[in-house]
Amino acid sequence: MSEGLPTIAEVRAATERIRPYAHRTPVLTCASLDAMTGAALFFKCENFQRVGAFKFRGAANAVLSLSDEEASRGVATHSSGNHAAALALAARLRSVPAHVVMPRTAKAVKRAAVAGYGARIVLCEPTLAAREATLADVVAATGATVVHPYNDARVIAGQGTAALELLADVPGLDLVLAPVGGGGLLSGTAIAVAGVSPNTRVVGAEPAAADDAFRSFHEGRIVPSVDPRTVADGLLTSLGTLTFAIIRERVAEIVTVSEDAIVAAMRHTWERMKIVIEPSSAVPLGALLEGKFPAAGRRIGVIISGGNVDLADLPWGRE
Amino acid sequence: MSEGLPTIAEVRAATERIRPYAHRTPVLTCASLDAMTGAALFFKCENFQRVGAFKFRGAANAVLSLSDEEASRGVATHSSGNHAAALALAARLRSVPAHVVMPRTAKAVKRAAVAGYGARIVLCEPTLAAREATLADVVAATGATVVHPYNDARVIAGQGTAALELLADVPGLDLVLAPVGGGGLLSGTAIAVAGVSPNTRVVGAEPAAADDAFRSFHEGRIVPSVDPRTVADGLLTSLGTLTFAIIRERVAEIVTVSEDAIVAAMRHTWERMKIVIEPSSAVPLGALLEGKFPAAGRRIGVIISGGNVDLADLPWGRE
Repeated sequence: MSEGLPTIAEVRAATERIRPYAHRTPVLTCASLDAMTGAALFFKCENFQRVGAFKFRGAANAVLSLSDEEASRGVATHSSGNHAAALALAARLRSVPAHVVMPRTAKAVKRAAVAGYGARIVLCEPTLAAREATLADVVAATGATVVHPYNDARVIAGQGTAALELLADVPGLDLVLAPVGGGGLLSGTAIAVAGVSPNTRVVGAEPAAADDAFRSFHEGRIVPSVDPRTVADGLLTSLGTLTFAIIRERVAEIVTVSEDAIVAAMRHTWERMKIVIEPSSAVPLGALLEGKFPAAGRRIGVIISGGNVDLADLPWGRE
Repeated sequence: MSEGLPTIAEVRAATERIRPYAHRTPVLTCASLDAMTGAALFFKCENFQRVGAFKFRGAANAVLSLSDEEASRGVATHSSGNHAAALALAARLRSVPAHVVMPRTAKAVKRAAVAGYGARIVLCEPTLAAREATLADVVAATGATVVHPYNDARVIAGQGTAALELLADVPGLDLVLAPVGGGGLLSGTAIAVAGVSPNTRVVGAEPAAADDAFRSFHEGRIVPSVDPRTVADGLLTSLGTLTFAIIRERVAEIVTVSEDAIVAAMRHTWERMKIVIEPSSAVPLGALLEGKFPAAGRRIGVIISGGNVDLADLPWGRE
């Protein structure tokens, strides 16, 4: 894992590094969501990013930052979500191996997605201890570099590239909102915004049912999540040491959002904007709909984090 | 209703007329759908159009084509779908009345959508005779101009503006695909393509379960739909005299698509492209997935007609 807090220079370097591989995603607007919130909203659509999530940016920056010698030994992680898919694709694009440790209880569809990007999957028991031991075994056997999903300076710098593009496309934002789980996206966003638009405030939005970042931010120490249960299943993780340090320094506020508001925001986005977003992506709009801070008349950037959702298991009822 | 077949000059004029009001929708591509079909696909995303469908183009062109004196008496139609919403919004933008005749059995959500755009809704019994009689009453009482959903030269010219934009953004297409119901979109597309890219073939895609356009095309006369039942509920209508005449002259082929292929194409589009499209919009991609014509190696434009779908009633099962 890299040490030290990444800087705006590293976010800029990441932008150049991933440019040949990542999509420069569009910024969309929506008159009816503007009318609903009273704000001018600019949605940075990372649901259109490769692998369907911003995670590709950080994983690609990490893989492309390795020396040829390091890269040849491959990369490894334990994850069953978007980071695993992103790391697998980034490794494939550099033609190096990716080893992904997954609990044997992971859904078949998630295993298939990661395997489809060419990673080697190593199954383990569904406990954190087993995951870490299995990952250590993989590293011992292969010499692969571990790429943590968020507590890694290269990953954080990569995630910040989305906000850098947003600010280039939409100057004069009063506020940028991002969801917060482990904090990779929010901390990268905060570095990018502070670097190029210091008068723009950065606010993190978190499910009230998984409010470890909110509590950590206010208590001044990392408070881990205990059994979080939220529809926003990309935001279950707790802050890391690096992401906490950056968020403490650079983020203006963290607000919490009810489950109902998250689902309503997700549904509004599908219905009005006609885009597929995952529940985690709806948390910032949920905060706006709940009136968690003054939005009227403001220009607000919203990072839509991803669009990977099980279409056969949506969080609203059938009629 | 206007007489005479519209020309490319009328499509160009419509483009200028609606420009201040309509969105110039994006053209999206998708690597995984390209891999699935072997083609290079370019999706013209009218699901992002105002009111969520291409119908706004034709309705706006019709309303904006009226003289001030005609316009002041308003416009009228009988419809409970996208055309009604489109006509209501177009009338509101010109600050003239819109009268929409709807069966009293129409879903509350559809009435609310049309009323939300400011139209006056006139309810009638749910029969074609009642709709037509009620519409005649409205016209007698108000002097409003009837705007037919598709068998109207101004509407057809307006629908053609989507293809004109597509061809400007993506030169050198081998083929342009559009769904066909009443034929307004397909005939407008065919006029636009013939006018600016005569070597590009235009193909209509139709549900096999509502194949009146296919049969009309091959029999050389309008064969009405009899009790069509398809998930693509925007394509239940039969061709009109104008749309049939244009399609016969300008369209290379009409292909039919199974219900399973339509649903699979819709789901692939949501999952891979992360956009919300309605079942009718999935019919062209369904034709490609069913191998209805050689696609490999070709550059193919696909008109995504709209994105208005009931999220609580999706055409796939729950897990």
